[in-house]
Amino acid sequence: MTELRNDLFLRACKKLPVERTPVWIMRQAGRYLPEYMAVRNRSDFLTMCKTPELAAELTIQPIDIIGVDAAILFSDILVIPEAMGMKLEMIESKGPKLFDPIRNADDVNKFNPVDPYKNLKYVLDAVSMTKKELAGRVPLIGFSGSPWTLLTYMVEGGGSKNFSEIKKFIYNQPKAAHDMLNKLADSIADYLSAKIEAGVNAVQIFDTWGGILSPHNFLEFSLEYIIKIISKIKRNDEPVIIFAKGVHHNLNELANSGADVIGIDWTMNIGEVKNNIGNKVALQGNLDPTILYANKEKIKFETIKILESFGNGSGHVFNLGHGILPDVSPEYAKFLVNTVKEESKRFH
Amino acid sequence: MTELRNDLFLRACKKLPVERTPVWIMRQAGRYLPEYMAVRNRSDFLTMCKTPELAAELTIQPIDIIGVDAAILFSDILVIPEAMGMKLEMIESKGPKLFDPIRNADDVNKFNPVDPYKNLKYVLDAVSMTKKELAGRVPLIGFSGSPWTLLTYMVEGGGSKNFSEIKKFIYNQPKAAHDMLNKLADSIADYLSAKIEAGVNAVQIFDTWGGILSPHNFLEFSLEYIIKIISKIKRNDEPVIIFAKGVHHNLNELANSGADVIGIDWTMNIGEVKNNIGNKVALQGNLDPTILYANKEKIKFETIKILESFGNGSGHVFNLGHGILPDVSPEYAKFLVNTVKEESKRFH
Repeated sequence: MTELRNDLFLRACKKLPVERTPVWIMRQAGRYLPEYMAVRNRSDFLTMCKTPELAAELTIQPIDIIGVDAAILFSDILVIPEAMGMKLEMIESKGPKLFDPIRNADDVNKFNPVDPYKNLKYVLDAVSMTKKELAGRVPLIGFSGSPWTLLTYMVEGGGSKNFSEIKKFIYNQPKAAHDMLNKLADSIADYLSAKIEAGVNAVQIFDTWGGILSPHNFLEFSLEYIIKIISKIKRNDEPVIIFAKGVHHNLNELANSGADVIGIDWTMNIGEVKNNIGNKVALQGNLDPTILYANKEKIKFETIKILESFGNGSGHVFNLGHGILPDVSPEYAKFLVNTVKEESKRFH
Repeated sequence: MTELRNDLFLRACKKLPVERTPVWIMRQAGRYLPEYMAVRNRSDFLTMCKTPELAAELTIQPIDIIGVDAAILFSDILVIPEAMGMKLEMIESKGPKLFDPIRNADDVNKFNPVDPYKNLKYVLDAVSMTKKELAGRVPLIGFSGSPWTLLTYMVEGGGSKNFSEIKKFIYNQPKAAHDMLNKLADSIADYLSAKIEAGVNAVQIFDTWGGILSPHNFLEFSLEYIIKIISKIKRNDEPVIIFAKGVHHNLNELANSGADVIGIDWTMNIGEVKNNIGNKVALQGNLDPTILYANKEKIKFETIKILESFGNGSGHVFNLGHGILPDVSPEYAKFLVNTVKEESKRFH
């Protein structure tokens, strides 16, 4: 195994001393990069996910171009529903479309948990290839959607405004919902374990739609299954990060889930969250992604504000509070990364 | 002035003793009602807003049909930008469209504060007519969008996914943004004062997009102007309600804004909010609107959960945590209202 030359990210996840705050950017391998668009223009999105050479190339682009402290494997959360047999179309400007969405117990019964070594082997191959090409420069993160977020897509059949179908499903057919959430949790635990075995240094679970649930329904339909996954993942000391967008309630419950790091969106004050949930976990975040539309002075001001809010010591992984937007200039993303690298030294 | 025969809503807003918790529903005069659709099918949306007879009819429908404890004047938050001279098209299934959106200081300079007695007289006429037809059955609420929410629409030109344009505007042209927010705040204060003079018994300010801002930017770009409005409104004892969707941070600051009632969405625990912000204000909310898709047993369970969470005593106006959805059955909305009426007695 190649030794990591930059392990700041992993040390911060474990709250071990660091010389400066590490930084990476959600969706850093994405459309804002011309180098990404060059690949995108000659292959469709799913082909990019399913071709290890392309996935590795896209994963490494932001390491070279933006200078982030961690790579995150280029992929998509919907590869699991697709591996379970749902037809998936990714139209990047329109969002994803899953055909024949789940609407009842019969639909749920059609699906079985996924064996990642069979149906998602291309992801594991992409991990091995990426690790080799990274050659120890930075750690590699693997990710999955949460069971709740995947179920939301599988029931809505894509994005949604009011999330009417998923809410009808869980409120009127809770048993079928829980059955499917269990299958997804088992699949995700196996999937993330396989990614760790293939070489990722950390895993992140995206609960993109956790925030549409009321607090007690979040516990019942989302957090329960995240906890199940964390307890089942086979790992050595690879950190687990949970990013539950919009989940400002239940932060203590997230911190007690077994996760090492809690990602927070930009509507929370990172210093207050740190005070409220104590010393249990590291925090990741939380710059408003649209700040990258501002001038450099404003970007620097808002970046320092977050560093100051978190304050002294380890346990902070700098990131945006949500994915980088496609029309952001790479120059400004790089400026953000350099600002974090420079300005964070005085907090360590 | 006709005396109110049911003033439960007003007493709860002022935290005065009530026999049971009052209830009304955001967007109660809306598309889920066949009686509304009958009017909608023969007139366009703006005509409905601008014709006092129609506005009065639509306002009163849910009093008769659903049995709510307050009427809210049928109108739209975008009548102010329209009165300022922006061309507005309302395509209900697609959302509103404002033409020639604001993008710089020159655009801002084109707009002057609105005189409600000139440009929004149709709203004041609708208030008088509705009050007469209500004949004291229940109080009448008048409403406005917040300056921030109206500015968001005026810059985006309609709804938005990432709110890129409004964020670019405030981060890169803060002075122009503040100029426009001031004009809007002055207009809204005059507008709500005129509505009170015309007879409304309470006013609600909708900050629908407050939740897209980070906590300190919310203070700068939204709350400051809400406070300005509240300090300028000419009123006797008519309560002011602020509903800032998604603003889980700064609840104390909202409670100190001069508002009598804070509306909360369904991602907050109403009992926790009550404990955190103390005895300063009443609370309105906060059932997940999609609960009305569930069966009656579930609706009753979730309704009682909120009543229990708020606990004993006055200061709770029951409502949804956001507007009622167009595909909800009126029977279930009426069931919710009856459940609140029946189950809330034991808390008073």
